[in-house]
Amino acid sequence: MTARLDDLPIRDDLRGQTPYGAPQAPLPVALNVNENTHPVPEDVADDILDAVARALGEVNRYPDREFTALREAFAEYLGHGLDRDGIWAANGSNEVLQHVLQAFAGPGRTAFGFAPTYSMYPLLARGTGAEWISGGRAADFSVAPEDAASQVANAAPDVVFLCAPNNPTGTPLDLETIAAVYDATDGVVVVDEAYQEFAPRDTPSALTLLPGRERMVVSRTMSKAFAFAGARVGYLAADPALIDALRLVRLPYHLSALTQAAATAALGHAETMLRMVDDIVGQRDRISATLDALGYEPYESWTNFVLFGGVDDPRATWQALYDRGILIRDVGIPHHLRVTAGTEQESTAFLDALASIDSAA
Amino acid sequence: MTARLDDLPIRDDLRGQTPYGAPQAPLPVALNVNENTHPVPEDVADDILDAVARALGEVNRYPDREFTALREAFAEYLGHGLDRDGIWAANGSNEVLQHVLQAFAGPGRTAFGFAPTYSMYPLLARGTGAEWISGGRAADFSVAPEDAASQVANAAPDVVFLCAPNNPTGTPLDLETIAAVYDATDGVVVVDEAYQEFAPRDTPSALTLLPGRERMVVSRTMSKAFAFAGARVGYLAADPALIDALRLVRLPYHLSALTQAAATAALGHAETMLRMVDDIVGQRDRISATLDALGYEPYESWTNFVLFGGVDDPRATWQALYDRGILIRDVGIPHHLRVTAGTEQESTAFLDALASIDSAA
Repeated sequence: MTARLDDLPIRDDLRGQTPYGAPQAPLPVALNVNENTHPVPEDVADDILDAVARALGEVNRYPDREFTALREAFAEYLGHGLDRDGIWAANGSNEVLQHVLQAFAGPGRTAFGFAPTYSMYPLLARGTGAEWISGGRAADFSVAPEDAASQVANAAPDVVFLCAPNNPTGTPLDLETIAAVYDATDGVVVVDEAYQEFAPRDTPSALTLLPGRERMVVSRTMSKAFAFAGARVGYLAADPALIDALRLVRLPYHLSALTQAAATAALGHAETMLRMVDDIVGQRDRISATLDALGYEPYESWTNFVLFGGVDDPRATWQALYDRGILIRDVGIPHHLRVTAGTEQESTAFLDALASIDSAA
Repeated sequence: MTARLDDLPIRDDLRGQTPYGAPQAPLPVALNVNENTHPVPEDVADDILDAVARALGEVNRYPDREFTALREAFAEYLGHGLDRDGIWAANGSNEVLQHVLQAFAGPGRTAFGFAPTYSMYPLLARGTGAEWISGGRAADFSVAPEDAASQVANAAPDVVFLCAPNNPTGTPLDLETIAAVYDATDGVVVVDEAYQEFAPRDTPSALTLLPGRERMVVSRTMSKAFAFAGARVGYLAADPALIDALRLVRLPYHLSALTQAAATAALGHAETMLRMVDDIVGQRDRISATLDALGYEPYESWTNFVLFGGVDDPRATWQALYDRGILIRDVGIPHHLRVTAGTEQESTAFLDALASIDSAA
């Protein structure tokens, strides 16, 4: 016999809520949460394991609270003249963004993003007590500089999230829009580059905008390009003064010694991991072309997934794919579905199954 | 050139604050943060490494959001008829307690503890927007049942922290007091048993009080008894309905696959790790006896550390020990210092150095 949640003195704003829950179903082809479906190569895994073994030798001690070696490795990977003082990291980009919100939003303040965008932003904002404000996008999910700046100026938020390229739509965001948004607010501007490694290689990162913009944050994750979703490592680059603000809200020793060791070792293999990214980009473009040929409407994507419209009944198509052992994502946009670019085999399995269903509107 | 923190739009309640910071100094004998100074034994570390190697094989995928195997391992370790539905875990007990505060305290609510107690409680409470209320203890740092109940009834807090045994004083807390506090409040009562494994073996845990008390939480950590401070693993037992409330506030996938694997493997070696605890308890009692012989006033301790009074000038003594390569903790109680029980060699080094200083009041 157990109590009911409603019998407990839980906060009123949490009553009736349900937990975040992308389904974790053991299907043979899982293309639903934008993971990198390629396992970490064996030689990289061996190096990581050696680093973890060394860390285990002193795991009885608290970890380096400043995760110095890891911050240095991120600075070297990102380049752009960054050094460790301009780097922060946490258990997944969710926690990185939570730190930013705890320092610059929270109770009585607001956070803003252009919907549809990453579904965790409003949850994270409200979790810190901030109010969430949704802006809008054009029909093709793009945002033009003047429109973006005007929406942000009107909303006057304390924190702005720019997902670049955008999840769940894949849409690129140009630097001109980012700069215009920065100039239109006195708040903190977070450019979430979780999928940046999947953009065309010559595309400049928002990291190029950081110098002189002390209210700008560029966040990244190791979950996608580095095939490290299971290790939970997000990070960001910003002015060292902004990083100091995050030190005030993080829990002491928030990054374990094992996480620090594993992530630092993986960053030493950036070149190998980015070759895997090239494979994924190839599959993404094949998926888009085939979807188009099948009569669907794929959107331009600079990420490791494709959003496509023209789906008559997304729930029925989702279920039909599920029944064939293929898990993709209904992100709640009418007549649309989203699929992660997997390995060649997984991508083919998805495309063949979809062709056999014939559900284009 | 970098901005100053004050130039940024940081929250007003954070302005002028400084980050949490026990010194992380590379001294030969570090007895300042109540770590288990014994490294994890080699055969245990080997098992953990095998588990991490398996986890690395699918680290490209998000981890089990429900950390099912780990919750089962904790339930088995704790016994008392618990099963996995009554278990929660996070990155260190700090995050476990933060989840409790996010669900049951937060803005407009209050949290309470009997000072002096674990210094993170007020920081965690304020970090979620809750107000902190300090209760008091007797001169020997004990809390009697009637007094505890009456203080809690008067404060009417939403969350009560009972550190049992108490940090930084080492003081035991009996079940009668815990039950009296529970009956005196409608809020959530957290019994923090971070150091429970160092109490006399026949001492009943607050886990025995859980049945029928759906607002009670018993929290633990792997940092101390399991020599796992670097791995950041805290956990708690409570009614499954209360655990459901924590699912509403945790970040999705908050526990990495590596953490889940390492902790589950370590729990398989509980017997080995608890033998190490016996060694530490022996050193703790030797430290207390020697401090007494040196003219200091050690307090009864059921933990892996000893608080001692009768120090003429704690800062001077702390510095004199530091200069001899020994790091202990000035916890801010006048004429007191706190030392962690280390290995036999470390404990001897501390006692010999202290004897050579002769700073008893």
